[in-house]
Amino acid sequence: MPDEMMERQPYEGCFSDFASAEIVLVGAGYDGTSSYRPGSRFAPVAIRAETLYAQEDYSPYFHRDIKDKAIHDAGDLELPFGDKDTVLKRIRQAARAVFRAGKKPCFIGGEHLITYPVIEAAVERYPDLHIVQIDAHLDLMDELFGSKLSHGTVMRRCYDLLGKGRIYQAAIRSGSREEFAFAAEHTRVFPFHVRELIPALANLSGVPVYLTLDLDAFDPSLIKGTGTPEAGGIFFADFIELLKALTRLNLVGCDVVELAPQIDSTNVSAIVAAKILRELLIVL
Amino acid sequence: MPDEMMERQPYEGCFSDFASAEIVLVGAGYDGTSSYRPGSRFAPVAIRAETLYAQEDYSPYFHRDIKDKAIHDAGDLELPFGDKDTVLKRIRQAARAVFRAGKKPCFIGGEHLITYPVIEAAVERYPDLHIVQIDAHLDLMDELFGSKLSHGTVMRRCYDLLGKGRIYQAAIRSGSREEFAFAAEHTRVFPFHVRELIPALANLSGVPVYLTLDLDAFDPSLIKGTGTPEAGGIFFADFIELLKALTRLNLVGCDVVELAPQIDSTNVSAIVAAKILRELLIVL
Amino acid sequence: MPDEMMERQPYEGCFSDFASAEIVLVGAGYDGTSSYRPGSRFAPVAIRAETLYAQEDYSPYFHRDIKDKAIHDAGDLELPFGDKDTVLKRIRQAARAVFRAGKKPCFIGGEHLITYPVIEAAVERYPDLHIVQIDAHLDLMDELFGSKLSHGTVMRRCYDLLGKGRIYQAAIRSGSREEFAFAAEHTRVFPFHVRELIPALANLSGVPVYLTLDLDAFDPSLIKGTGTPEAGGIFFADFIELLKALTRLNLVGCDVVELAPQIDSTNVSAIVAAKILRELLIVL
Amino acid sequence: MPDEMMERQPYEGCFSDFASAEIVLVGAGYDGTSSYRPGSRFAPVAIRAETLYAQEDYSPYFHRDIKDKAIHDAGDLELPFGDKDTVLKRIRQAARAVFRAGKKPCFIGGEHLITYPVIEAAVERYPDLHIVQIDAHLDLMDELFGSKLSHGTVMRRCYDLLGKGRIYQAAIRSGSREEFAFAAEHTRVFPFHVRELIPALANLSGVPVYLTLDLDAFDPSLIKGTGTPEAGGIFFADFIELLKALTRLNLVGCDVVELAPQIDSTNVSAIVAAKILRELLIVL
Amino acid sequence: MPDEMMERQPYEGCFSDFASAEIVLVGAGYDGTSSYRPGSRFAPVAIRAETLYAQEDYSPYFHRDIKDKAIHDAGDLELPFGDKDTVLKRIRQAARAVFRAGKKPCFIGGEHLITYPVIEAAVERYPDLHIVQIDAHLDLMDELFGSKLSHGTVMRRCYDLLGKGRIYQAAIRSGSREEFAFAAEHTRVFPFHVRELIPALANLSGVPVYLTLDLDAFDPSLIKGTGTPEAGGIFFADFIELLKALTRLNLVGCDVVELAPQIDSTNVSAIVAAKILRELLIVL
Amino acid sequence: MPDEMMERQPYEGCFSDFASAEIVLVGAGYDGTSSYRPGSRFAPVAIRAETLYAQEDYSPYFHRDIKDKAIHDAGDLELPFGDKDTVLKRIRQAARAVFRAGKKPCFIGGEHLITYPVIEAAVERYPDLHIVQIDAHLDLMDELFGSKLSHGTVMRRCYDLLGKGRIYQAAIRSGSREEFAFAAEHTRVFPFHVRELIPALANLSGVPVYLTLDLDAFDPSLIKGTGTPEAGGIFFADFIELLKALTRLNLVGCDVVELAPQIDSTNVSAIVAAKILRELLIVL
Repeated sequence: MPDEMMERQPYEGCFSDFASAEIVLVGAGYDGTSSYRPGSRFAPVAIRAETLYAQEDYSPYFHRDIKDKAIHDAGDLELPFGDKDTVLKRIRQAARAVFRAGKKPCFIGGEHLITYPVIEAAVERYPDLHIVQIDAHLDLMDELFGSKLSHGTVMRRCYDLLGKGRIYQAAIRSGSREEFAFAAEHTRVFPFHVRELIPALANLSGVPVYLTLDLDAFDPSLIKGTGTPEAGGIFFADFIELLKALTRLNLVGCDVVELAPQIDSTNVSAIVAAKILRELLIVL
Repeated sequence: MPDEMMERQPYEGCFSDFASAEIVLVGAGYDGTSSYRPGSRFAPVAIRAETLYAQEDYSPYFHRDIKDKAIHDAGDLELPFGDKDTVLKRIRQAARAVFRAGKKPCFIGGEHLITYPVIEAAVERYPDLHIVQIDAHLDLMDELFGSKLSHGTVMRRCYDLLGKGRIYQAAIRSGSREEFAFAAEHTRVFPFHVRELIPALANLSGVPVYLTLDLDAFDPSLIKGTGTPEAGGIFFADFIELLKALTRLNLVGCDVVELAPQIDSTNVSAIVAAKILRELLIVL
Repeated sequence: MPDEMMERQPYEGCFSDFASAEIVLVGAGYDGTSSYRPGSRFAPVAIRAETLYAQEDYSPYFHRDIKDKAIHDAGDLELPFGDKDTVLKRIRQAARAVFRAGKKPCFIGGEHLITYPVIEAAVERYPDLHIVQIDAHLDLMDELFGSKLSHGTVMRRCYDLLGKGRIYQAAIRSGSREEFAFAAEHTRVFPFHVRELIPALANLSGVPVYLTLDLDAFDPSLIKGTGTPEAGGIFFADFIELLKALTRLNLVGCDVVELAPQIDSTNVSAIVAAKILRELLIVL
Repeated sequence: MPDEMMERQPYEGCFSDFASAEIVLVGAGYDGTSSYRPGSRFAPVAIRAETLYAQEDYSPYFHRDIKDKAIHDAGDLELPFGDKDTVLKRIRQAARAVFRAGKKPCFIGGEHLITYPVIEAAVERYPDLHIVQIDAHLDLMDELFGSKLSHGTVMRRCYDLLGKGRIYQAAIRSGSREEFAFAAEHTRVFPFHVRELIPALANLSGVPVYLTLDLDAFDPSLIKGTGTPEAGGIFFADFIELLKALTRLNLVGCDVVELAPQIDSTNVSAIVAAKILRELLIVL
Repeated sequence: MPDEMMERQPYEGCFSDFASAEIVLVGAGYDGTSSYRPGSRFAPVAIRAETLYAQEDYSPYFHRDIKDKAIHDAGDLELPFGDKDTVLKRIRQAARAVFRAGKKPCFIGGEHLITYPVIEAAVERYPDLHIVQIDAHLDLMDELFGSKLSHGTVMRRCYDLLGKGRIYQAAIRSGSREEFAFAAEHTRVFPFHVRELIPALANLSGVPVYLTLDLDAFDPSLIKGTGTPEAGGIFFADFIELLKALTRLNLVGCDVVELAPQIDSTNVSAIVAAKILRELLIVL
Repeated sequence: MPDEMMERQPYEGCFSDFASAEIVLVGAGYDGTSSYRPGSRFAPVAIRAETLYAQEDYSPYFHRDIKDKAIHDAGDLELPFGDKDTVLKRIRQAARAVFRAGKKPCFIGGEHLITYPVIEAAVERYPDLHIVQIDAHLDLMDELFGSKLSHGTVMRRCYDLLGKGRIYQAAIRSGSREEFAFAAEHTRVFPFHVRELIPALANLSGVPVYLTLDLDAFDPSLIKGTGTPEAGGIFFADFIELLKALTRLNLVGCDVVELAPQIDSTNVSAIVAAKILRELLIVL
């Protein structure tokens, strides 16, 4: 792991040390390229805080307890907000450290750009990596405000690494005409919900799969604390159906991004994100 | 258009001038008869503001881009809040100017009463006008607090103009016993959702149809920023189904009313309203 | 009724006196054992306040008006927050006074612990009482923080009074492994939604049934103003389906608990709770 | 009093009936001409609600208890928001009823326009009436948005009734160049604070004085819940100094206007307004 | 220290262990007798969280750094909210452990009642203890809602322990007539501000002094996140003047109570409380 | 001016074109290095929005009207948030364009780092530039999180450009021990308030002076919407006193930074900032 880690009160129930852990939780609260509402920097601390009071360790969906898993909470990466290159390098280092140790990383963003350095590290370990992206937005622009590396270009950069047909995108309901045209040629898009994605996941049987979950995939009814909410998203029951399908795949890592907890003064967004993370950790 | 227009930063993508436009967007932020929580006066500015950052111009639901349409954003009417007669007159003038120019108006309220002067102007142009009202409330009272012209009586006044069987009311889940009795005799009510309305829209084939969309038709899960939220409403997917059915009709104008953006500090209500408006403008 | 009642502006439409009432509404705003976010103390006043402006007396779901029912709003119990024994005693006294007069109580919590003294009084009157609990949480712990009487143990204490198979628990999606194991042996659990509960209610035909409705049973999309929200809950249409099934049973009392109105600055949680209460009062 | 009164839970400690009261408290929650942020309609209910929990009856500033005074809380006037003429008429009727009975009215606004009909009634009773206005704004425009009767013209209309030199305006820090020019000729202005006003009050010895207190006179540090806050206002200690000076005058009535409680989610604005009202009632 | 401690991310800069510490910081987040707005349970965690980001370790008021002091942050006491006796016992145990080890405790409430068990322990160690109370409220009631132990009676109970003339109360601006009468006989009251208190502190030279700081002593302009805010309080500069005077006394312990951080969505209340605590720790 | 300008609804009353303007207003909403709460990106739009409704054009403090001044509102710079170098370059270009045209710039931040490129351009024009910094924080760190260019190092970088004794810092109440030591040697510090600064400004008579106003200089009572609020700041009357002193100097430019409007849901912070800006523009 990089030297620049900030110790945090761990996600409740994640008490393994690094050496004995199967899964490593890492906070990467960078929101430097957010073009609308920043604040996902606060997500890792906010999510962990809710686990102390607001939820049980046991999942009635999978009849398992988070304490049954060997999970190490490594704390948060120290990320100098104004220096994108350093930020991406530190995330890449952390992801590499986890993959090289033969463990599965679970990153808590931060904005969606944090997925890119994790995928860079993942591809080193798993050259045939596939990505399942649950997101309201395609994130397939080639440039945003003149930059190649941004929350709006992140999946295009991942495409550059993985190539055609290796990214499955579901719950999508926003993008430019050009992005949808690009997606039609180069990725697999399952718009609006996850219903058509679930049977298609059978194609991914056997290959290493990384799940990136942008919380704006959820309907803003449920999660209001995110930078660019989009009406018409998925609800929690859809997510559980998706997770059940994912248990049949070879998941090698995941991330949960784009929670901006301070937007939602009811704290419901952070509370729900904490529960989403619990279920993810249990099935990873 | 009336002289008293306030220039506004336009709804993103609506860059036609009046002469060349097919559709004219007008803000009518009046909330003077709101009996509970006022604030819909702020809706036109709030909705347009969200279009700068929070959404794409392209609709993946209809595979069209708002820039493909010739839309003029005329800005906001200057409305003296304490003087209801002047307010209604100015809205009527603006609506007339649009209808007489052979264009389709799209009004952003304000409260629901703003629909009445628009309908007055519409009926002048289209004597066989029919109305599709998507709303939580019947708005069929004959008087409210001694007044004939109010957000609670607006559809009764429209009924006075149009007569029996010309108003279709869907998503309805609130009203007095007397209003429901009146509706049973004089309008067509499709309570609770839009599922039964959709097939019935076939009856309206060929006739000019005006759509009035009170945002409290939506479930308060999705839109909390409205004066009188009512549990049990529609969600965004229902709205898209409805819009698809409406594309088969002869829509001559529409309005979106009752957003009170300042109630919802997450801004989700305004962001969703902006998207609803984008889809409406694209199908109008 | 206890001497220590605080007079309140009544729930709109509940204008009977005690003697002539069939139903008695009582506020019990205690939140002393809440382990996370307190504030349900404010629920009775907040719910009644919304009935003045935000809703009609008429239910289009049941075609009845709340004014058709003989309902007495007794106001709020004065509850010394730091003294749990006195609090529980006063609630028990109030419940007894209602049951002994042959009337049906409807309590507005406060936290879920307030259900326990009401059930104590109910069992005195109806020894074969059954409970239908709509809730996100099992509330079947034997102790919480060393205490036998808490919002997390309340249904375990009710079980101690009623015995095996008499508690039906639906919409449940949170609990420890131990609680789920206890439930499998001693209560009937219908997890996640109310769909499987509804046909099972036929078993309760003829026996006296008490309904306890923890508002966190609802999805946090709809009700954010509650202490421990849990993703994946029911929506309003599910609740109406449930109520329709309940009309075929012998309901002898009910409560609505765990609204913490100040958490939700949009007031939607209180507005929805007021409507839920209207429907409950109409079918009780 | 007008027939159209809405009964309210009274301001704590104001338990006299009308006949035996020396002071009559009346809510006039009209905000129909507010040109920026409405919501002062909610002030009367919000202020009274805070008196139940948030404050003592006893004033340590004047060593008196509100229960020592004979105060009748008449409830709130029912005001049809869209109909300004009716609104003003009802307020005038209520003020007349109080003045004719030889009592002192204390009105809770609502916006500042509500002062005008009260002054109309006051002048009937006290032809030599003088006004002390504590306010951030001069409110001396002759017209606002084409209207003679508005929150921005209210003191100009009062000037029309009273004539030159009879209005003392303090804490003023906003107005147009024209309004300041008018004030220089026709009223007495003590800008920015109340320090220069206090000695000048000696001029008013013996004449009947009406106090109108616009809460935006206070610094927005203290009161944020008002429609048009202005930096640089007075603090609570200044207000107490002012009140001490006012006790030497012949106060015949007062009002407290422009609290918009819902703007301030901390409730501090309403809590402070309730205390301001307590001190006012004690010295009236 | 009691066994039931919850580990917390420490107040920034407080890194001593218990044995080597001069000062021991203890969180006591109990709010069980709050009669209005609870939530001070969240204060210890909220205050510490702000120290990570929002402030420097160095005080320019006293030219000292918090790291210069040997301070141990013992974490938070685990307090079962519904069981007041256990709560008070655990606080007393913790205070005893600190005093007996010859160290100075600094407690973070919680509500004001938590001061009582600390004073019980302090008196055991320092029989001639005096108290300086900075507070908006006298807290001298003999009973509140039938209870002898409550946030409204806490200083009366302390009086019972210490006797006449040993409690100095400043910034006071609320209480019943009876409480002010009691104070006139039994304590020393410096109402409204701390200006008269500061010279009087010379009387306390040499005796052991405990400082209890109720944050509602501050003007609600500055601290809005407290249960019962009172207009007319002190500002930060007054507090620094007071602290300078206190450095000349023999301070043996202190507490900071009644922050309810969730009321103030700007977080300013918690940020200011963290700074107040820094200055206190530096002068203790 | 740079090509990448975003057109905005201008600050009310600033209607000159660039050529004829004496003052040029530029929005620079960058918040990329904020280490705690971002959001100052929204300040320029929020401040201008408030000028439409919430304030007069006339200043009663200086008896002048903003329309009397020739001010051009150039809109907002388009700033790619993740690319600090480009951001700083564009701000420098804009500042240069204004200074080279012989006009005075007034920048609206954004965070405090935006001052640095403006000073770079100012020094080119005015080699003997002096800075008056009104701020809670010294901002004199040499590095923050490994970066030389950050909101915490900005005045150190300005010092590098200007040299010893040319920066006057007032209202300061936060910094590390090292920063205060550096300041003692290299700048002139007037801690806590502006009272000692005002007479010292006489030293600056005749030299070109740039004013940088970090809004956290104000007490958080007044301005809560800022990233790192610090208790003990100045109030509005202090600011007016300061401005009066500044009118005697040769002001060549200014900025107002660190408003984070979305933190303060009452909008008071933005409303006050708009008024501060009005007074600044009037005296510039």
